[in-house]
Amino acid sequence: MKFKKIEGLIAAPFAPLLQNGRLHIEVIPQYYQLLKRNKIAGAFINGSTGEGVSLTIEEKKQVAAAWAEAAENDPEFKIINLVGGASLEDCEEMAAYTEQLKLYAISFTSPFYFTPVIAQTLADCCRRVAAAAPNTPFYYYHIPALTGCNIPMYDLLNAIGGAIPNFAGIKYTHEDFMDFLSCMYMENGRYDMLWGRDENMLPALALGCSGAVGSTYNYAAPLYHELIKAFNDKEFSRARDLQVQAIEMIRLLGKYGGIAVGKAYMKLIGLDCGGFRLPVKNMDDPSFKKFMEDAERIGFYNFCSK
Amino acid sequence: MKFKKIEGLIAAPFAPLLQNGRLHIEVIPQYYQLLKRNKIAGAFINGSTGEGVSLTIEEKKQVAAAWAEAAENDPEFKIINLVGGASLEDCEEMAAYTEQLKLYAISFTSPFYFTPVIAQTLADCCRRVAAAAPNTPFYYYHIPALTGCNIPMYDLLNAIGGAIPNFAGIKYTHEDFMDFLSCMYMENGRYDMLWGRDENMLPALALGCSGAVGSTYNYAAPLYHELIKAFNDKEFSRARDLQVQAIEMIRLLGKYGGIAVGKAYMKLIGLDCGGFRLPVKNMDDPSFKKFMEDAERIGFYNFCSK
Amino acid sequence: MKFKKIEGLIAAPFAPLLQNGRLHIEVIPQYYQLLKRNKIAGAFINGSTGEGVSLTIEEKKQVAAAWAEAAENDPEFKIINLVGGASLEDCEEMAAYTEQLKLYAISFTSPFYFTPVIAQTLADCCRRVAAAAPNTPFYYYHIPALTGCNIPMYDLLNAIGGAIPNFAGIKYTHEDFMDFLSCMYMENGRYDMLWGRDENMLPALALGCSGAVGSTYNYAAPLYHELIKAFNDKEFSRARDLQVQAIEMIRLLGKYGGIAVGKAYMKLIGLDCGGFRLPVKNMDDPSFKKFMEDAERIGFYNFCSK
Amino acid sequence: MKFKKIEGLIAAPFAPLLQNGRLHIEVIPQYYQLLKRNKIAGAFINGSTGEGVSLTIEEKKQVAAAWAEAAENDPEFKIINLVGGASLEDCEEMAAYTEQLKLYAISFTSPFYFTPVIAQTLADCCRRVAAAAPNTPFYYYHIPALTGCNIPMYDLLNAIGGAIPNFAGIKYTHEDFMDFLSCMYMENGRYDMLWGRDENMLPALALGCSGAVGSTYNYAAPLYHELIKAFNDKEFSRARDLQVQAIEMIRLLGKYGGIAVGKAYMKLIGLDCGGFRLPVKNMDDPSFKKFMEDAERIGFYNFCSK
Repeated sequence: MKFKKIEGLIAAPFAPLLQNGRLHIEVIPQYYQLLKRNKIAGAFINGSTGEGVSLTIEEKKQVAAAWAEAAENDPEFKIINLVGGASLEDCEEMAAYTEQLKLYAISFTSPFYFTPVIAQTLADCCRRVAAAAPNTPFYYYHIPALTGCNIPMYDLLNAIGGAIPNFAGIKYTHEDFMDFLSCMYMENGRYDMLWGRDENMLPALALGCSGAVGSTYNYAAPLYHELIKAFNDKEFSRARDLQVQAIEMIRLLGKYGGIAVGKAYMKLIGLDCGGFRLPVKNMDDPSFKKFMEDAERIGFYNFCSK
Repeated sequence: MKFKKIEGLIAAPFAPLLQNGRLHIEVIPQYYQLLKRNKIAGAFINGSTGEGVSLTIEEKKQVAAAWAEAAENDPEFKIINLVGGASLEDCEEMAAYTEQLKLYAISFTSPFYFTPVIAQTLADCCRRVAAAAPNTPFYYYHIPALTGCNIPMYDLLNAIGGAIPNFAGIKYTHEDFMDFLSCMYMENGRYDMLWGRDENMLPALALGCSGAVGSTYNYAAPLYHELIKAFNDKEFSRARDLQVQAIEMIRLLGKYGGIAVGKAYMKLIGLDCGGFRLPVKNMDDPSFKKFMEDAERIGFYNFCSK
Repeated sequence: MKFKKIEGLIAAPFAPLLQNGRLHIEVIPQYYQLLKRNKIAGAFINGSTGEGVSLTIEEKKQVAAAWAEAAENDPEFKIINLVGGASLEDCEEMAAYTEQLKLYAISFTSPFYFTPVIAQTLADCCRRVAAAAPNTPFYYYHIPALTGCNIPMYDLLNAIGGAIPNFAGIKYTHEDFMDFLSCMYMENGRYDMLWGRDENMLPALALGCSGAVGSTYNYAAPLYHELIKAFNDKEFSRARDLQVQAIEMIRLLGKYGGIAVGKAYMKLIGLDCGGFRLPVKNMDDPSFKKFMEDAERIGFYNFCSK
Repeated sequence: MKFKKIEGLIAAPFAPLLQNGRLHIEVIPQYYQLLKRNKIAGAFINGSTGEGVSLTIEEKKQVAAAWAEAAENDPEFKIINLVGGASLEDCEEMAAYTEQLKLYAISFTSPFYFTPVIAQTLADCCRRVAAAAPNTPFYYYHIPALTGCNIPMYDLLNAIGGAIPNFAGIKYTHEDFMDFLSCMYMENGRYDMLWGRDENMLPALALGCSGAVGSTYNYAAPLYHELIKAFNDKEFSRARDLQVQAIEMIRLLGKYGGIAVGKAYMKLIGLDCGGFRLPVKNMDDPSFKKFMEDAERIGFYNFCSK
């Protein structure tokens, strides 16, 4: 299988939920328009940001189908569906469904209960899931902070040895730049290495990365487009300033409780996706007020998606 | 809700699989007979040993239904169904199904992708899942080595504050005896604390524990019955010798690759449950031969279940 | 070399400091008398509790010499000197000095900057340090929570293979009871396994342990003597109650900031050892007031050393 | 105090040892000449690479004095002396001695036995040690992989709040680029942020870093000079190729056992520094042969220091 590498920003959409926690699938066309308006190249759905792990299989299928429909006349818009991780049986089912929907790609992350400790086991898992969608590009999703799987991707690629025909690349959500660059250079740059740490986009660009997947591209795409432009124009000082603005925005996630804060940012730009489901905790109202002030203070409205 | 505490050994059965990895549900009546013959008080199904995380929801229901049927005329045999952890929606569905089957109890473990870091969040998760089977006792399953959730159980019980009516106790699979004993003493010993580390049964008995859940009770129940008897007879030296025999048996799990070795022990006692599904790795044949020799060397056939 | 095993409680004394942080060596005779009055069998000096890592070599020698002098007419009082860990050169110097003082034993913990990851390296370190005091029993001090060295002691003893003549045993400050019991059974119980987790003394007694080293024996020895007596009299229920009292006392350490709280307990029994040196943080005065109330509430004055 | 920022490469020299493990101080003038020949801007001595933790205080003073003497007519050559970490008393003594020698700077790392968990405690430690050499610039050495101290440097700088007059900056040996860049931007770029991960120099350059401290600059300085030149010339593709060469060289450290492999590289360029002291393990002869072949294969002789 021959792959084109992904260029530009892929957003990882939030799962749109109602107040009662049910899926608010009707929002997705509007969500798609938001991303398009902000020059986003695609969507990585049912991932960490998309709460895939907190949705039922049926709900994940609904999300996938709704995105497929929203973008059905837009073959350029790349939808990557995270098919899961813990149970390979479930992953296979979702992989097959994704292929049936003709989405751009599937993604798969390390099993996170019985977490593999050797690269060969993880390679075997990839092979199994990739085979369930044999005509669809497969991206491994490397996010050790959530899966606990610390196997270097260089070792995974060596264990695979090119033997999974639809293995396209890796969504790399980790700070190991040595490992990341090593993967970029493997087999003449065969693999599509997508950067997954928005707070470190500039270092990744310096290493030659041209595609990125992230949650903050949902609500701050213009900032990153400028950052990329500054880098391409070799205006590094400006690129750093922009990266620091991104970091200030991301620091508020830590300050106000983590991943759920992303949905608070979405409220600020006018696309209400509800709250996160348990076990993720949402901000209470007083915190949200302080968060709004902080967001204004760091200039969020100057660079947010519109 | 008023609970009786569990006395004796609860086995955590393996998921019976065929060579091709499909469920071999037909083995369960025979499995039930094995446990009964060896004076096992119940079964903790779909847990870590039972590969619940690697089964689909449909398969977990089949397993639960098959155990319910096998023991339908045996009200003393306590079946506890682990309803999962990662997705609360799925857990609720399984909890409701368990109540419908009238099994003895449900169990729930910490979400292990978005892992709670404060006790209140974990308490909220327990409340949600417990409410889906309101007439069924609920056991929290504490196994930080697999879930990554290190919240002490003393903190969880304090966060719950007695406000979950069907919260019966904890299956405690961790070495923190200070935490364990603290929980045993809370609210006049209200909670049923089930010990989950077979290699440390003797210390748990010394702390007053009278119920235990474990995987090695599947194939070495007589050894543990003797250990408990020695403890009750205050023959400590003998109890230690028996605990050391258990440890030698358990050390072979580490030597031959972990949890999958349990199914190899099952083969030695004549109940073939197949292999583990990926991501767990099974022993190859040469290793199995060496394992058999080691099992004989440590006297496994003298104390195994029959 | 032939060793007698240690019976009873060894206290790990605090480093007595003045307000200005200098050593208050003059307190040591009085400290020794306190321990004697409370039937303590010896002192493990310059350890974690004794802030060995925060003292200079010269100061550690002063501490060792002062204890040697305080107990010079008391051959039954066993003084074990922790010779350090990070720099083997320094450890060797302290080991030789300890032998010269004719103290009962030396102890050595894992290097904690370049932390060994394989048992053979750690065995090599033990061999080097033990050889610097060849006529003095050597105890390895296992405290992975502080050293970061997670090598099981069963593996260390196997790597040593009996080849260090003065290797007497292990001060075991960790919750791995499987490992602990395995070590107790090695080579017909050759090794003196000293228990180092005061909050878990009862489980250790059940495993046959008869010697313990700990910090709370400095100020609550009567409680533990009663616990041991209850165990020996096979009054388990009473033993558990006493263990729970110990746990309540130990829980205040966590509540008020950790190891430095031990010196606050010493103030309550009238032996002021000053504060801890940086990097350990001491309680401020308002916290100390609350701590005093809590100590009273849990009945500290009923079971403390006098 | 006003500081000039450091430009260029600072090598972290190995401790030169004889076969018997004693210091081979006589090599230092030659070592200094090697670094000068290869356009190295200074030396970070007694650090991780320099085995400071395995040397006695007396030995560390000898090393410092020897470097001071070797470079006494070279005021441009910046010598930074790591004064330690575990015991603040020892650190203060070394700090005072360093000031007496008029070395360029002192450095201090987090205590690594009683490891601080809050930024204020670490700031207090820095204050204490910095005050012992009040006329000498102070660099905090951030290396959580060895110290276990995971406090972000952004938090440390905030806790210090500008109140340590000689606090000059940070040697940053960690992959958290968000934290690193945040520190670079604090108080108008007041702090001198030295990069300490040779395998990730290119990303650090992209973030505006202009000074670096590392062990591989001892033996592969020309490679990094070329990398910096390529970056400054905006030849990114070439810069990446050079970074990948550095990575291949660094990968052999992992393959052959870690930090000790650095001294093997030194042998290849003709400056024998002996082996590492325990607890670091050295390569055996057969491994060294294979290592030499690997070094040749990756082109080490084309870019090594000469």
